[in-house]
Amino acid sequence: MFQSPKLVYDTPSCPPSPLQASLMSTSSPGPLSHSTINPKVTSAQYAVRGELVIKAMEYEKTIQAAREASRPSGLDFDRIIYCNIGNPQQLQQKPITFFRQVLALVDYPQLIEHPSSPAIFPPDAIARAREILAAEPGGTGAYSQSQGIAIARRHVAEFIAARDGHEASAEDVFLTEGASAGVAAVIKMLVRDESDGIMVPIPQYPLYTATLALCGGQPVGYYLNEAKGWGLEMSEMKRALADARAKGINVRAVVVINPGNPTGQNLSENDIKGVVQFCQDENLVMLADEVYQANVYKDGDRFTSFKKVVRDLQSPIQLFSFHSTSKGVIGECGRRGGYLEITNIPADVKEQLYKLVSIGLCSNVNGQIMVDLMVAPPKSGDVSYPLYNQEVTGILSSLKRRATKLGTELNTMKNISCTSLDGAMYAFPSVRLPPAAIAAAKAAGKEPGTWYALELLKATGVCVVPGGGFGQVSGTQHFRTTFLPPEEAMDDVIMRMRKFNDGLMAKYEA
Amino acid sequence: MFQSPKLVYDTPSCPPSPLQASLMSTSSPGPLSHSTINPKVTSAQYAVRGELVIKAMEYEKTIQAAREASRPSGLDFDRIIYCNIGNPQQLQQKPITFFRQVLALVDYPQLIEHPSSPAIFPPDAIARAREILAAEPGGTGAYSQSQGIAIARRHVAEFIAARDGHEASAEDVFLTEGASAGVAAVIKMLVRDESDGIMVPIPQYPLYTATLALCGGQPVGYYLNEAKGWGLEMSEMKRALADARAKGINVRAVVVINPGNPTGQNLSENDIKGVVQFCQDENLVMLADEVYQANVYKDGDRFTSFKKVVRDLQSPIQLFSFHSTSKGVIGECGRRGGYLEITNIPADVKEQLYKLVSIGLCSNVNGQIMVDLMVAPPKSGDVSYPLYNQEVTGILSSLKRRATKLGTELNTMKNISCTSLDGAMYAFPSVRLPPAAIAAAKAAGKEPGTWYALELLKATGVCVVPGGGFGQVSGTQHFRTTFLPPEEAMDDVIMRMRKFNDGLMAKYEA
Repeated sequence: MFQSPKLVYDTPSCPPSPLQASLMSTSSPGPLSHSTINPKVTSAQYAVRGELVIKAMEYEKTIQAAREASRPSGLDFDRIIYCNIGNPQQLQQKPITFFRQVLALVDYPQLIEHPSSPAIFPPDAIARAREILAAEPGGTGAYSQSQGIAIARRHVAEFIAARDGHEASAEDVFLTEGASAGVAAVIKMLVRDESDGIMVPIPQYPLYTATLALCGGQPVGYYLNEAKGWGLEMSEMKRALADARAKGINVRAVVVINPGNPTGQNLSENDIKGVVQFCQDENLVMLADEVYQANVYKDGDRFTSFKKVVRDLQSPIQLFSFHSTSKGVIGECGRRGGYLEITNIPADVKEQLYKLVSIGLCSNVNGQIMVDLMVAPPKSGDVSYPLYNQEVTGILSSLKRRATKLGTELNTMKNISCTSLDGAMYAFPSVRLPPAAIAAAKAAGKEPGTWYALELLKATGVCVVPGGGFGQVSGTQHFRTTFLPPEEAMDDVIMRMRKFNDGLMAKYEA
Repeated sequence: MFQSPKLVYDTPSCPPSPLQASLMSTSSPGPLSHSTINPKVTSAQYAVRGELVIKAMEYEKTIQAAREASRPSGLDFDRIIYCNIGNPQQLQQKPITFFRQVLALVDYPQLIEHPSSPAIFPPDAIARAREILAAEPGGTGAYSQSQGIAIARRHVAEFIAARDGHEASAEDVFLTEGASAGVAAVIKMLVRDESDGIMVPIPQYPLYTATLALCGGQPVGYYLNEAKGWGLEMSEMKRALADARAKGINVRAVVVINPGNPTGQNLSENDIKGVVQFCQDENLVMLADEVYQANVYKDGDRFTSFKKVVRDLQSPIQLFSFHSTSKGVIGECGRRGGYLEITNIPADVKEQLYKLVSIGLCSNVNGQIMVDLMVAPPKSGDVSYPLYNQEVTGILSSLKRRATKLGTELNTMKNISCTSLDGAMYAFPSVRLPPAAIAAAKAAGKEPGTWYALELLKATGVCVVPGGGFGQVSGTQHFRTTFLPPEEAMDDVIMRMRKFNDGLMAKYEA
């Protein structure tokens, strides 16, 4: 019989009897305790959703409870502004209309034939939904091929070819659950034991160190140069590699995040050539995290992909390139869409990657379709193009304005300096804490950057991530904040940050 | 600048020069080769999407190419019938109308306010979409909390409470990317090194052995008794545990799949009590894979959850329970929705689980909403209830008819026997191959069960999975097939299977 889930809850459980309760509380702890969890799990750190966010969620509950009881919360703010994570739609960025129209049509295909639909949906959205469902008759409710739906992989290959001016193949594209799942799969293939290491930038997006910790591999940090706008320096990469090899670490690969997270720098073609040559000389696999490729703000700057440079140079280096629907101007984070492209990867390695993604069956099909839409949006002449173009241009120019404003304002706050915000979605300013503030942090049992961020949260409701979560030169302090609050809220965020920061500096420098 | 993805592809790449080509082909292989991949990856096996499916996809391409060239394909079938995987909507099962209406509305919220909407959508679908968006103002495009959206977790807890008659808490529910991601997270926490093992049934769903291989842990197989309808026997579980401990394996947990995959058996409450007591006596964590809880077909049978029994017994055992939107009667596989519930798990272990899922940010929100709909569907009195009820009743009774028909017919095929198909979506019949057939398999370089399945595929286009992928008593042969082809196609599948099988048996018994 079908077990109907609509039964009413009619047999409440009894609390344990006193005897049973005492037996339960005195019985030995279960087999899974904090001390018997896989230590690779306990050692992993992921600050983007760590202590600060957990605290912010507590404040949010306090505010909610106070509101429901019509009493003051005791806090100096009435809502949390989540600047800890690049999550545009949480901060009121609107989705791209055409994309959502197509999703609605493929999720509920009866809409396509409905007589009212032409009054609601533009013809190109209807045509696109038909095209997707013709290619994938199982629709969004069927498992796709492990590698992802063919129509989206073909469009991804066309997008890459147009971007780079080099051929690309749908057979080399894997659709993944955001970029994160693709990165995790590749690191899992690379790391055999604790003697294997992967070079990651400092500061970095903590997915890399967290995944390395889970796989038991060594992060080999190379420092970006803050004084040169978080520039990448070949001498430092060589230093990091040599030091790691001297320690017996078998360095397998290099991660570059371009444009940078949390740093926002956009690499020049020459920088990229240098890294490719380095990988070729040193026999290293290249992981190119290019999820912010559409987030380049500086006039005259443009994004150059590692794939383009590898093909330009006809380099044989093994390259994994990652992209996502979560960033760019579309910001479809909750969709968990992404892809990875493999370049110069042998067939028998690709087979293993295929098997590995098969174990999770497939990435969600709705997310795969969002990848398809991201790489093949309405084009000039299409009915939906004017609106699409207006939306993406509007979002991009607004991001640019917010980046400029935040960068400028941070530099006027006491003891804060911030490099030019040229890409991605973040500022990663340096905060010079006076010795008395560092002493106060220590007295509170907190690392100074964490203490600063917790104090900022407590005073303003603005949730940022301490720099330690990304890595920083020892003795320096930073934090990462997005510039995603809506423009009308940005002034308020900046005002609150300034009041808090300048007040704190005045207090501890007194 | 926004890098427009609509550039035309205008700079085709040059092929490498002969010199470059020779350099490329003679250069040493890159750092990532089959022999330098993490051996935990190469050792993992996942037959459900393995050799048979890859072969089937090749045949599909042959058929497609022949069709496009208007020439015969040379094959004895004109399409592949994918019975390798429980993927109902790939085989034309229709989605539940109400669920898809709500998804369309939340994906494209402008629909909610559109003047045409009341002509298209029932008022309860519109109300539900409003409720979800009020609870999650970021909509489906924002990352959710790591643990999943609160409204769905609350509904899951209510569903569990109603099902089991015991309280459940939203704080103990994690929304996951299908059940698979939840299982992977728990196994990752449990397995520290190669001395840790987890008990899995034989036959099992290969997610378990594959994930154990990836984590470097030991599968400790306990055999289900085919002669007793794939029944679970405590003596065998004790035997398996004792043998593993004698080998020095630190057995951490037990997996039970109920109803069984690939075996379809539905455990009695007494069976479950026995397993719970066993875990309690032996200090083992319990993993209850209950994704087929709505797929129980035998008259008078009903599903009993491990959670219910643990609470009935007031047992302190540590339990992780898994459920999914992919199975049941809704079959939303591509949605990748699922949940795990924790019972008797200490707070500091839960924190680690929270951190682990945070590293992947969140499961896709569309899938989370499908979980919400699965556990809180229209109820009696709602506008959409009659259609919902008609759809789920229709699908369930059709699954039951197909299970009965396939089970009955398999038992009339030569050298095949099949237990009663009481649950889940699969038959796992035994095939007694004559010695000459086994010799033919060996001559072809194939394991006999794989050879049989490949021959079946080549002769009929029906894609099943060899029993070896699930585990079986040494020297026996089985295959797993779903009973998901539409009723009108089922007769044809059975006819083709019979013709192939009985012909093969006649040939090799001659």
